Amino acid sequence: MFDIKLINTEFDDVIQQKIDTKTKPLGALGDLETLALQIARVLGKDKPQIRNPKMMVFAADHGIADSGVSIAPSEVTTQMVVNFINGGAAINVFTRQVGFDLEVIDCGILKPIENLEGVIDQRLGAGTGPIHKRAAMTLGAVKQGFKMATDRVELHHQNGCNLIALGEMGIGNTSSAAAIMAALTGMKAEDCVGRGTGIDATTFKRKKMLVEQALLMHHCELDDPMQVLACLGGFEIVQMTGAMLAAAERNMLVIVDGFIATAAALAAIKINPNVREYMIFAHQSDEKGHVMMLEFLQAKPLLKLGMKLGEGTGAALALPLIQAAVNFYNEMASFADAGIEI
Amino acid sequence: MFDIKLINTEFDDVIQQKIDTKTKPLGALGDLETLALQIARVLGKDKPQIRNPKMMVFAADHGIADSGVSIAPSEVTTQMVVNFINGGAAINVFTRQVGFDLEVIDCGILKPIENLEGVIDQRLGAGTGPIHKRAAMTLGAVKQGFKMATDRVELHHQNGCNLIALGEMGIGNTSSAAAIMAALTGMKAEDCVGRGTGIDATTFKRKKMLVEQALLMHHCELDDPMQVLACLGGFEIVQMTGAMLAAAERNMLVIVDGFIATAAALAAIKINPNVREYMIFAHQSDEKGHVMMLEFLQAKPLLKLGMKLGEGTGAALALPLIQAAVNFYNEMASFADAGIEI
Repeated sequence: MFDIKLINTEFDDVIQQKIDTKTKPLGALGDLETLALQIARVLGKDKPQIRNPKMMVFAADHGIADSGVSIAPSEVTTQMVVNFINGGAAINVFTRQVGFDLEVIDCGILKPIENLEGVIDQRLGAGTGPIHKRAAMTLGAVKQGFKMATDRVELHHQNGCNLIALGEMGIGNTSSAAAIMAALTGMKAEDCVGRGTGIDATTFKRKKMLVEQALLMHHCELDDPMQVLACLGGFEIVQMTGAMLAAAERNMLVIVDGFIATAAALAAIKINPNVREYMIFAHQSDEKGHVMMLEFLQAKPLLKLGMKLGEGTGAALALPLIQAAVNFYNEMASFADAGIEI
Repeated sequence: MFDIKLINTEFDDVIQQKIDTKTKPLGALGDLETLALQIARVLGKDKPQIRNPKMMVFAADHGIADSGVSIAPSEVTTQMVVNFINGGAAINVFTRQVGFDLEVIDCGILKPIENLEGVIDQRLGAGTGPIHKRAAMTLGAVKQGFKMATDRVELHHQNGCNLIALGEMGIGNTSSAAAIMAALTGMKAEDCVGRGTGIDATTFKRKKMLVEQALLMHHCELDDPMQVLACLGGFEIVQMTGAMLAAAERNMLVIVDGFIATAAALAAIKINPNVREYMIFAHQSDEKGHVMMLEFLQAKPLLKLGMKLGEGTGAALALPLIQAAVNFYNEMASFADAGIEI
């Protein structure tokens, strides 16, 4: 479905040589060196540059939220979308600071927001079905979501963007992400479900039960990642998955944010493993499931700040580190340049 | 010697209330929230701003380097200072990127660099004495170093700077830092000595032996931090310690970089514990001693990128996170602002 090139490792020796002859001890820039290699593979070994980085925030509502799995009701999704448009949320602050262009995409919140400019309409419905009772959406909706996300990424690509980050907003979406994780990794539901943004013990117990119920209900159909997304997904998760695949297809880097974005990344990797090498993992939250999913993906995020907000906040804060990897690669003197014999 | 105000916790409730009513779940910004509280305590609860951030890189040479404790000879200190002035080192790249003004201070490299503009002369000598044979410097030199550092910090303070970061360059300075750490924490030398920028097993063994020898030789005099600095310090370490104390005295924030900067911070805290709350710890390296010293100081650095370079690189990369803490505190909408009931 997505034609993603196997990562180009042809110039690894040249790239590594360039990194190793910079005026620093071998390996002294740690994870930034690994990152520089990855970026140079994707964007080219000669003067790679991050261009027009785009933060895409996908919002949608979840049927399961009605059963009480979150600290807030579904209405808060809409209220936060308004907050994004008005510039008052954490993701607004961080994207302004680091130089991300931010856009907010309605993938299917409860109902469209009237009289509010700036929200991009990619609605797949008015919230998903409750996954513990029925499928979240049809397979057709998943495909439609992929197409919409692809079209949007293509637009950014045409505008010269070569790095996207993906954030999300959707009350109830950690339940969906946990279910996707369990289905695609084979881990137990109870290991995948976390406390999200801070639910109490009773709600936590209910959340685990409902995710388990969702997995049992759909288990016959969970044999491929598209079906997993249809049965357990969210409209925003589906579009994030599609956007990641579309970006890699266009040789763009993808910054993966927190738990929900990582579940979308996992689905994308199951659909086309080649996408993995285009992904940069931004932030590891304290959520147990997130730690385990990152281990499953052998991913080492750049940051670990104990955040649990989503919205793309971790991805936004990772951009300066990604930029630092690019900059040291392009700008640092070599020992030869500096006339240092070591 | 330094008149540092006990951190002002008078407005903690107001500050915490402001953080807690931002449009995000309670605590959802993790370590950035702790950081915002700390910054608001130091810079004020109403619209705190980082102004004219200054990266001070202190360079000096170490007598112990002659005995072979590093991957490179002392000449490399001078070569790297030239590299800093020419803009080719990692610290140049990172400070340019994040908006730090960078200065390079010669605290006592082998000999002054002729015909090179831009190095600030705060020389305390031509490299320290070899600490395993005699004291690194006199107590008078420590005091002189504090005075020079204070004058420099005062200059920045007068120019409106309210945040300094401290980096260093000095072949052999991880040996000095390890010895200081052992002397001030009571830990064993072998737990404090690490592989620095990547020495082999033989050099590592020798480094441990020499640091142990230094501690034994001076043990009668290691009863106060000034003496510890005189016996075991480096000219750059002494001036970093002085700069930290001087900055806190002027109500400025201090970003502490890696292993050597943390040893300087430890000395500063032993001299005046009030300085601790003005310090932001930037990066945790893989060096075992660094991990233990940070634990000793109950410090949780913002980054953990496996870097082992010094120069202030970790501190530079932490600035965007510090800025993010300030920005969310100042700019995010509250639930009331956004009309969200939660």
